[in-house]
Amino acid sequence: MEKIVSLCKRRGFIYPSSEIYGGFSSSYDFGPLGVEMKNNIKKVWWEEMTKNHENIVGLDAAILMSPKVWQASGHLAAGFADELAECKNCHKRFRADEIGKRCPECGGELMEPRKFNLMMKTFIGPIEDKAAVTYLRAETCQGIYMNFENVLNSMRLKIPLGICQIGKAFRNEITPKDFVYRIREFEQMEMQWFCHPKDAEKYFDFWLNERINWYLKLGIKKENLRIFEVPEKERAHYAKRQIDIQYKFPFGWKEIEGVHNRGDWDLSNHSKHSGKDLRYFDPSAGSGQAKEKYFPHIIETSVGVERSLFAFLCDAYQEIKGGRTKTTKPTKEVEILLKLDKKIAPIKVAVLPLVRNKPELVKKAKEVYQLLKPHFICQYDELGSIGRRYRRQDEIGTPLAVTVDFESLKKNDVTIRDRDSLKQIRVEIPKLKEVIQKILEDEEFLKLGKIIR
Amino acid sequence: MEKIVSLCKRRGFIYPSSEIYGGFSSSYDFGPLGVEMKNNIKKVWWEEMTKNHENIVGLDAAILMSPKVWQASGHLAAGFADELAECKNCHKRFRADEIGKRCPECGGELMEPRKFNLMMKTFIGPIEDKAAVTYLRAETCQGIYMNFENVLNSMRLKIPLGICQIGKAFRNEITPKDFVYRIREFEQMEMQWFCHPKDAEKYFDFWLNERINWYLKLGIKKENLRIFEVPEKERAHYAKRQIDIQYKFPFGWKEIEGVHNRGDWDLSNHSKHSGKDLRYFDPSAGSGQAKEKYFPHIIETSVGVERSLFAFLCDAYQEIKGGRTKTTKPTKEVEILLKLDKKIAPIKVAVLPLVRNKPELVKKAKEVYQLLKPHFICQYDELGSIGRRYRRQDEIGTPLAVTVDFESLKKNDVTIRDRDSLKQIRVEIPKLKEVIQKILEDEEFLKLGKIIR
Repeated sequence: MEKIVSLCKRRGFIYPSSEIYGGFSSSYDFGPLGVEMKNNIKKVWWEEMTKNHENIVGLDAAILMSPKVWQASGHLAAGFADELAECKNCHKRFRADEIGKRCPECGGELMEPRKFNLMMKTFIGPIEDKAAVTYLRAETCQGIYMNFENVLNSMRLKIPLGICQIGKAFRNEITPKDFVYRIREFEQMEMQWFCHPKDAEKYFDFWLNERINWYLKLGIKKENLRIFEVPEKERAHYAKRQIDIQYKFPFGWKEIEGVHNRGDWDLSNHSKHSGKDLRYFDPSAGSGQAKEKYFPHIIETSVGVERSLFAFLCDAYQEIKGGRTKTTKPTKEVEILLKLDKKIAPIKVAVLPLVRNKPELVKKAKEVYQLLKPHFICQYDELGSIGRRYRRQDEIGTPLAVTVDFESLKKNDVTIRDRDSLKQIRVEIPKLKEVIQKILEDEEFLKLGKIIR
Repeated sequence: MEKIVSLCKRRGFIYPSSEIYGGFSSSYDFGPLGVEMKNNIKKVWWEEMTKNHENIVGLDAAILMSPKVWQASGHLAAGFADELAECKNCHKRFRADEIGKRCPECGGELMEPRKFNLMMKTFIGPIEDKAAVTYLRAETCQGIYMNFENVLNSMRLKIPLGICQIGKAFRNEITPKDFVYRIREFEQMEMQWFCHPKDAEKYFDFWLNERINWYLKLGIKKENLRIFEVPEKERAHYAKRQIDIQYKFPFGWKEIEGVHNRGDWDLSNHSKHSGKDLRYFDPSAGSGQAKEKYFPHIIETSVGVERSLFAFLCDAYQEIKGGRTKTTKPTKEVEILLKLDKKIAPIKVAVLPLVRNKPELVKKAKEVYQLLKPHFICQYDELGSIGRRYRRQDEIGTPLAVTVDFESLKKNDVTIRDRDSLKQIRVEIPKLKEVIQKILEDEEFLKLGKIIR
């Protein structure tokens, strides 16, 4: 765990936030590699939803919404709250389930625990009074329910249909912990599937299966993934059924995604509170059949972006003692290999001159870099031995390394090294872009050039 | 203006937020087409920065930062504030520059105007007291300054270098207005260019030019774009020089992007407040030359995503009286054409069976749709006459329409219609994906198939 946290900072994946001011509230910033990886995960998810499935469209609702939304959704009620006990002496508050009878700060006596809401408050407009209070959204899906009718009308969709969204949400967690696993500001990727009540269970199973497969397709090891059927007492207040997809983190099995059957909780509550009838009128019922009006039931799939990114990092992380290859000098160092799927690896291609002190090699390598750079996220590196530079790329999960050597000057070709197999092929520079494109689209590496190792 | 707002809602670009609860605070949600268009703009900008330029890397910092950041940056001081006058009677507040001496609500007398800070406050942790107060960031760039050293160290970069970021920012505007132009929650695309002080002016000119060209490349009409050199009195508190790139909106010339020379304001202030020396040590000075330590100067380019999206919409919007073509029956209706650049158009391809009542045509068209859907954002439409469906796609800016007709059943080919020229080519279905790919990459339309119109 500490090794991954340290790698993340050292190589530009994740930094502690506001670090020069001593950090802030267990909050984190994503560095150059982290943001590329995060964007890749979001892109793969978005395309999975909007391109690989039927009848799903996207949405991007504002973070700040009418406070009435949160009254109707139940988030301002007791259900969305932690139990806190306040010290009678110093008035600090502590999570009731983590504390005894006396204050750990001053030794004072604690009051009876009370519910403390997890929503973060802010103020809109020029007057800081009650009328202007609102909240940072605690889940992105409410924006989807608000726009259910708008989407239905403007896109002329019929049920069953899905609306997907990626965006920030905020929860005032009392004890953020486990690196980016439990943080107060996080990003969700949520898809809400609206269907006929009689189909809800069927679609629950369907989406659970789809979501598990998504992780497996992106290389998460099967043995590190499991599902957990959440018993009624522990379920979120809106959930009729809830299955967590859990990942085996270094600190234990933890949820990375939830699949929920929200029933008609959201649409019926918002209808009640807004006075707007959000029932769906089914236009497709044939003649003779009664046309039906009903609250669609909702199956939700909800991923935390940071959690899934963290799981991908943990799953990809390997340490190899004594070095990876026998052809290079065995080393006493432990080598790190980050076996990220090609789709989510932040840097796709490293471009390396074999040595640094030959100007014609460096010049050629820079030309290759310029050639590839507009098409792939690339890194040029000339510092240190070639073995050392390969290791630096392995450590950040770069799937391909292109090396420019003395042969390149004669034959106008380069070596491509595959991160995982350590195999190398030789490819002519004019074909290089196309070959890399194909490798990244999962065509067979060894068939795309002359095998040299 | 009202026409664009209405089109945005009707066709799924932009909806008023929390509408079923009567809306909220001039805030807006992006519908299925709006989010695709927004994602396209963000992608084109991100690739422009990280792929088409040298030495620029990305970042994604948290929205919630240490409040010390905002003390050092000057945002909690008087400079980042509106003047408000409070009514002595009803205690409501109004912008001093928009009001007379008496309250427009109750007629009461107004107090002397006072500064009202634009930052939005929230509370972190279990106690709602001063110690836990923080702010929603008012500009994304502060996250970049916080991580300047982290990026430098983990990415081994040398000055000049750029760090780019896309993310939400919040300002408690007293009078949000002009649709999505002035809103309280908005998204910024910012690039901070760190350079030697002596190069700052040179890079200011360079980046200003680059940014203007970016809009022109994406199809914004030259006559709708101008620059405005902001005089000293009106400049942001951090800016040594400021040029606004303005777009001619229906409500007048307004800023869509700012290019700022921030000098050493940010890094020197954060050094002072944090005690951390953020000067840059230049390792490249040759032997004999004194190695130099200095505060890099910063050239900033800062775009509002919603503002630029709005400008792209306005610029693309055309009304054609009597219909676009002479071959189809002239109509009394006004036809709308949204001439969006192919890169930012939300839907890339429409797939249309010529008629709806021939099952074999519909089946074939659905097959074509399934073929294209995993690769492009597509829309299938079979409702109404083919002319009507073309118009529906023109209205949302879809660059290409693929029509499946009776010929298609015999020859396994389709017609592709180009939105702007109204030209049509005939392409075999097995080649369709590749041809569309090429058209979207700006290869010449008429060379990619048999011209039929």
